[in-house]
Amino acid sequence: MNTGRLETFADGVFAIAATLLILSVDSHLGSCAPAGATLAHQLECSWPSYVAYVVSFLTIGIIWVNHHTVMDQIDHADRTFLMITVGFLMVVAFIPFPTKLVADHLQNPGEHAAVYAYDLTLLAMAVLYNVWWRYARRGRRLIAESVPQSKLDAISRAFDPGIVLYLVVLAVAFVNPLASVILTLILAAFYVPAGALFYRATG
Amino acid sequence: MNTGRLETFADGVFAIAATLLILSVDSHLGSCAPAGATLAHQLECSWPSYVAYVVSFLTIGIIWVNHHTVMDQIDHADRTFLMITVGFLMVVAFIPFPTKLVADHLQNPGEHAAVYAYDLTLLAMAVLYNVWWRYARRGRRLIAESVPQSKLDAISRAFDPGIVLYLVVLAVAFVNPLASVILTLILAAFYVPAGALFYRATG
Amino acid sequence: MNTGRLETFADGVFAIAATLLILSVDSHLGSCAPAGATLAHQLECSWPSYVAYVVSFLTIGIIWVNHHTVMDQIDHADRTFLMITVGFLMVVAFIPFPTKLVADHLQNPGEHAAVYAYDLTLLAMAVLYNVWWRYARRGRRLIAESVPQSKLDAISRAFDPGIVLYLVVLAVAFVNPLASVILTLILAAFYVPAGALFYRATG
Amino acid sequence: MNTGRLETFADGVFAIAATLLILSVDSHLGSCAPAGATLAHQLECSWPSYVAYVVSFLTIGIIWVNHHTVMDQIDHADRTFLMITVGFLMVVAFIPFPTKLVADHLQNPGEHAAVYAYDLTLLAMAVLYNVWWRYARRGRRLIAESVPQSKLDAISRAFDPGIVLYLVVLAVAFVNPLASVILTLILAAFYVPAGALFYRATG
Repeated sequence: MNTGRLETFADGVFAIAATLLILSVDSHLGSCAPAGATLAHQLECSWPSYVAYVVSFLTIGIIWVNHHTVMDQIDHADRTFLMITVGFLMVVAFIPFPTKLVADHLQNPGEHAAVYAYDLTLLAMAVLYNVWWRYARRGRRLIAESVPQSKLDAISRAFDPGIVLYLVVLAVAFVNPLASVILTLILAAFYVPAGALFYRATG
Repeated sequence: MNTGRLETFADGVFAIAATLLILSVDSHLGSCAPAGATLAHQLECSWPSYVAYVVSFLTIGIIWVNHHTVMDQIDHADRTFLMITVGFLMVVAFIPFPTKLVADHLQNPGEHAAVYAYDLTLLAMAVLYNVWWRYARRGRRLIAESVPQSKLDAISRAFDPGIVLYLVVLAVAFVNPLASVILTLILAAFYVPAGALFYRATG
Repeated sequence: MNTGRLETFADGVFAIAATLLILSVDSHLGSCAPAGATLAHQLECSWPSYVAYVVSFLTIGIIWVNHHTVMDQIDHADRTFLMITVGFLMVVAFIPFPTKLVADHLQNPGEHAAVYAYDLTLLAMAVLYNVWWRYARRGRRLIAESVPQSKLDAISRAFDPGIVLYLVVLAVAFVNPLASVILTLILAAFYVPAGALFYRATG
Repeated sequence: MNTGRLETFADGVFAIAATLLILSVDSHLGSCAPAGATLAHQLECSWPSYVAYVVSFLTIGIIWVNHHTVMDQIDHADRTFLMITVGFLMVVAFIPFPTKLVADHLQNPGEHAAVYAYDLTLLAMAVLYNVWWRYARRGRRLIAESVPQSKLDAISRAFDPGIVLYLVVLAVAFVNPLASVILTLILAAFYVPAGALFYRATG
């Protein structure tokens, strides 16, 4: 079973989940301002929804870039791999929901619950991402022959901290939900270059 | 007529229908809790909408995996096959609607009607899926030459119980709507490995 | 400029426009029933929204099948062709809006305006589709060398009645909006086989 | 790293962002008319939402056509290029939000704020588009060997005025928001042919 259609479906889910995020900006507008506020005022006080949009879009973008990197090493798919992919994409497609919670509740009552939901979703994603990669990698089950072992090791080293990092993000949310969201943004912005660095250092 | 664009369009519909499911989780939130409830409470009492999301996403994922398996045997498409595909995708794209009904009504007034609508949609899908496969298969009309007859038989055997199983799911809904939804989940989770088993046993 | 990405983008718009149609079924539910009606009653009186869904989905499906047929004859694209495609897709992506109008107003006040909007959108689509095909065909501008002239003539003959037929659909709406919608359904169901017939008769 | 999946993801975001625009037409309907107005009246007074739809769809369409043109010159992608692409697509996917603001507020209170938000989004897009192209072009970093230098120069010349033009569009919004929106439409309609002209003149 080749991987062409798998990538088309995955790219579709990534693209749609990312694009649907804008609906949470949309539905939030006005809810932060008193009735009769000017549009300019509404746009100003809606900043948490822009932050949530940017963080989620970049996070989905990073996952997509990483997914891209892994799929380049994969030679073929089996049904278990397809099923893990479906589960993984189910979590990706879930992201717009906690993103909307963060947009609606950050700096307002309920912000702890909203950011817990958000961080738990990202954690679930990191866990499934690791399961997915380990399944493909174990005994080079689905790996193309031409891929050197050192590259597999580098990818594993780059992905390994993912679960721990998202656990830290979740822990920070207990103290300060906004700080947790900003940490997620930093993670999204620096994770990929760091991963790339890892490979260059060892490759 | 080759099948590349057919798969792109189908993958698009699968991916979008699956990703739109999250909107029903979104719109349900809060409707289960009294006015002024905390977000944490709203998130807790919304569990039927998560169940509905997971069941529908996995079901669409399974159909996609199976569609993938069948399309690998198909050599070319004719217009009748395209039209059956359009009808089949019309039912797939309909799934977010009864999913939302289940999310909104499970464990509440109207749950029988909601689950009937859900189960009838899945039944219609199973019927169209069988029509689609039988059309392609009859006299090897659209099947690639290299595919052995034993593989076609294995696919047919794996898909044959589909209609009966969804009839059982519908029958269970008369007695207990929640049980019917959970049975759909079990069906989605075990159907694919079972189908794969069938082939290995005979191939 | 090759046509691969053009088809990916077009297939994306077709798939999304078709899948978004379900939102109009969604938003209509309940608006036809008195407050406190059972879900079963709401689902029954919502039949115009199902009709609108089926008609629009099949219509978009047919356009997609025909687009598929034409693109198989096209060798390359130029910028004018891309721009006509963008305009054409703009009308396709508009279809969910009048579909929702029909879902909300059929058999109710405003049904004439709703069906006029619907029929005018389909007419605009038929006009742009003809412009698009004629541009590609004139002097075999974008046609692959291997395509026989008789096939181009057959496609033209199959598409020529489109504008007239959608004018008839619009005229019927003045007398009876429901009849106009049903006529659109018949058109979608029979247009493709008829087009295929034309080619076989002459090919 | 080849560019196939990059294009699939980008085409997905373009297609979905363009298709989601119709939701702003949808949600605007009726808000411009007094309660109890006929549907015909509601459809008439909703013209700003149609204008906003057409302008945004054509703008996204033009960006897509230009993206297409550039990607044909690109031989491979690196991670920085992927990250700029994600940032660029984040702005493209944001477009439906200010489009809805324009649909809701044009010719009404708040139209200045709405059109500023719209024009700033398009300006951000033009800036990121330039960053993206310059990154690929510098020292022919990602350019295919077969592409002549004159073609790169022509593309740069065609894209260079983009930022200035969208600054003019923004300046016009201070004086007259409607004029600014119409100018955006003219820009979308003439920019591509102008770009094509540039190349022919120098190629």
